[in-house]
Amino acid sequence: MAISRLLIANRGEIAVRIIRAARELGIHTIQAHSEADADMLAVRLADEAVCIGPAAAKNSYLDVARVVEVAQQTGADAVHPGYGFLSESPRFARALEEAGITYVGPSADTIERMGDKVAARQAAEAAGTPVVPGSKGRIETLDDAVATAAEVGYPVMIKAAAGGGGRGIRIAANEDELRKLAPQAQSEAQAAFGDGGLYLERALRDPRHIEVQILGDGTRAVHCFERECSIQRRRQKVWEEAGAVCLDEPTRQELCASAVAMAEAVGYKGAGTLEFLYEEASNQFFFIEMNTRIQVEHPVTEMVTGIDLVQEMIRIAGGEPLRLTQDQIAVTGHAIEVRINAEDPHLQFMPFPGTVGAMRLPEGQGIRMDHFLYEGYQIPPFYDSLIGKLIAHGSDRAEAISRLRTALQSLSIDGLKTTIPLHLALADDPQVQAGTVHTQWLEPWLDAGNLTPAATGGAS
Amino acid sequence: MAISRLLIANRGEIAVRIIRAARELGIHTIQAHSEADADMLAVRLADEAVCIGPAAAKNSYLDVARVVEVAQQTGADAVHPGYGFLSESPRFARALEEAGITYVGPSADTIERMGDKVAARQAAEAAGTPVVPGSKGRIETLDDAVATAAEVGYPVMIKAAAGGGGRGIRIAANEDELRKLAPQAQSEAQAAFGDGGLYLERALRDPRHIEVQILGDGTRAVHCFERECSIQRRRQKVWEEAGAVCLDEPTRQELCASAVAMAEAVGYKGAGTLEFLYEEASNQFFFIEMNTRIQVEHPVTEMVTGIDLVQEMIRIAGGEPLRLTQDQIAVTGHAIEVRINAEDPHLQFMPFPGTVGAMRLPEGQGIRMDHFLYEGYQIPPFYDSLIGKLIAHGSDRAEAISRLRTALQSLSIDGLKTTIPLHLALADDPQVQAGTVHTQWLEPWLDAGNLTPAATGGAS
Repeated sequence: MAISRLLIANRGEIAVRIIRAARELGIHTIQAHSEADADMLAVRLADEAVCIGPAAAKNSYLDVARVVEVAQQTGADAVHPGYGFLSESPRFARALEEAGITYVGPSADTIERMGDKVAARQAAEAAGTPVVPGSKGRIETLDDAVATAAEVGYPVMIKAAAGGGGRGIRIAANEDELRKLAPQAQSEAQAAFGDGGLYLERALRDPRHIEVQILGDGTRAVHCFERECSIQRRRQKVWEEAGAVCLDEPTRQELCASAVAMAEAVGYKGAGTLEFLYEEASNQFFFIEMNTRIQVEHPVTEMVTGIDLVQEMIRIAGGEPLRLTQDQIAVTGHAIEVRINAEDPHLQFMPFPGTVGAMRLPEGQGIRMDHFLYEGYQIPPFYDSLIGKLIAHGSDRAEAISRLRTALQSLSIDGLKTTIPLHLALADDPQVQAGTVHTQWLEPWLDAGNLTPAATGGAS
Repeated sequence: MAISRLLIANRGEIAVRIIRAARELGIHTIQAHSEADADMLAVRLADEAVCIGPAAAKNSYLDVARVVEVAQQTGADAVHPGYGFLSESPRFARALEEAGITYVGPSADTIERMGDKVAARQAAEAAGTPVVPGSKGRIETLDDAVATAAEVGYPVMIKAAAGGGGRGIRIAANEDELRKLAPQAQSEAQAAFGDGGLYLERALRDPRHIEVQILGDGTRAVHCFERECSIQRRRQKVWEEAGAVCLDEPTRQELCASAVAMAEAVGYKGAGTLEFLYEEASNQFFFIEMNTRIQVEHPVTEMVTGIDLVQEMIRIAGGEPLRLTQDQIAVTGHAIEVRINAEDPHLQFMPFPGTVGAMRLPEGQGIRMDHFLYEGYQIPPFYDSLIGKLIAHGSDRAEAISRLRTALQSLSIDGLKTTIPLHLALADDPQVQAGTVHTQWLEPWLDAGNLTPAATGGAS
């Protein structure tokens, strides 16, 4: 059933983005917002706006019952969750299903299955997609650890089975190191989590983050090629590209086909992303997880393919079959997105909410900026620090970088500290230009002082 | 010799556009400006700025000696003329040649030859490009007129040989009408210009304005396909597209090939546009004139081809051979540009200079806005009223129109009256949507009240 009234259960730039897509499809838009977001741009742009609760996200954007209630009260026939917040909550999708309201995304069951890392890994293996080799289950003894490591191959990562967020990870290059490090890890895990169980996984050398955008209608899926997001800080993507320069053509085809196979195997409906790590030395890719929602970096794919991903996911949610066949999807040129955050890159990226002063936004061929700023807007301190995304598209990667640099130079937002100086320094870095970075590259680069005010001419 | 210091002898949005292109090429930019333009955006963006005279263009942007002098004083090795002002002045190009400074455009001789309508027409005929059939020279007698009309074909336009600007043009559908109208035209021309000589030309039915973008390096030329600019008011283009929906593929190929032949025949160097009228009923096109400069509407071509035309013209002026071969140039999708003028469309498009208040610029995939606005900027009343150009690119024309409409809806510029309501009304017009307009379409449409505040919901 075609969607006619869409509730946007998100904020910031993605809310603006969704309103634009809905408007082009002739859909009435209802913007949900917290008390702290009453002044945000999406509220001004939407056909209607409705307050869903106080500033704290858990009482507004994350409150399943409240969002469903508001969807019912406003007569919405569909809800777009954006990214973050309730965008990967099976409970939310299920509550909407039960209320007879369309969720713009896959089924609650698919979200649940793909949100469980073990289940997702099993789904990947079942579809023939390689996963990072690791222990089948918990490891309790040193002998177990040595035997497993011999199987998955060195170097291995030693993780606490009960841990998370990268805490206490150790890397052993060989059996000797493993015999030394595993008992340390075990006693540390015991102390920290009351559980000494370990988990081993092959440690990839200079892994690069590559992901494949897919669209599915439940029956059929297509891929919209890959993105590379290897420049990360604290596991947050900072700079994203379409496509991945490190891939040769057969590997790209294999990777994309593998993503489609997995999406079709789970009957995927909507826009989704399969994330992989790629090891250049061995030319191998490994599935790590699936995101069952639109991603922050989706515009780079839109720029190179010409496909409006947000519109497509709305159409699919409205019951249309996929409009595109694989051979209709092609890549033109190269695109780069950088995240403009209200943070001070010279002060450990401390968040810098404030009032937006005079702005100068970049323009020109191949330049797109998705944002939610206006002069006088007070950025509330309650949410993440992303204020906009600058996207540059060129006929090749060098042209995309050149356009990105020019656009960054002409972009100014008074009143805030932003990550613009970081992106300018990255655009000028020889390794970024050569495309030889990996997921562990940015933090040592920052630690080495490449972004001191002196190194970047004091730009801020 | 590669250009390293470029003087921009223009203002407004095209100055900003040129600075961006130069910066991406690593060229130092020097912005020339009048006293009235000291605050303009290009002055703020350029590496240097220099005042060239008072507000009146004839003492600043049109003062050949002064601009050449400033180029010398600032050590510029090249000058970009933009469009308008000195951009088609052979005297200016020659003065720069004599001063040893590169002119970003064709040679003075080419500008002169193509600027002379008779010489340009002869060049077209020599290259085998059709021109609008007309009298070879002045017509002095009624018998001459009848004989000529029989040759060029009815309906014919009767013009005063000494006239210009469309004054006193009459159209005769057949010999009877010609015999009645020609003597009237003759005596009116005698009274108005002291010269009763006439000129006859075939009157095209519902002509459409189609132009071909070319790039040449003096030896070789390529085309970047065509644009259509049929929506005009008082011979000013209002809405421009790439490509022309009315052309079938063989005619498009023939038209573009014909433009390349003509450009190569004159050894054209730089970016140029050959303008044609196209008569759909007869499927014939006729050369009307060549513009030896970059045009206002160049971005639509950039959007569909991915070529940065301003960069290419700078490279060519710097002595590089054409980088592109014809088979490397392809069109993806469709693009539309609308001219945002500071004019009140509800008051006969009266210019509305003023101070720019809060702005909301559109963003998103396929959207580009070239402009020179910032909040608090006072638009000087001395120059033309173009304040920006909104360009929308889509995978097809319907998508381009849909994106254009959404972008126009989200575009707001406080403090000014603009032509935004005109473009919104055009985007909603069935004939515009069907692509069945011609150069005489817009004025009757306006006269018919399609843009009264009531008809457009009072939008302003």
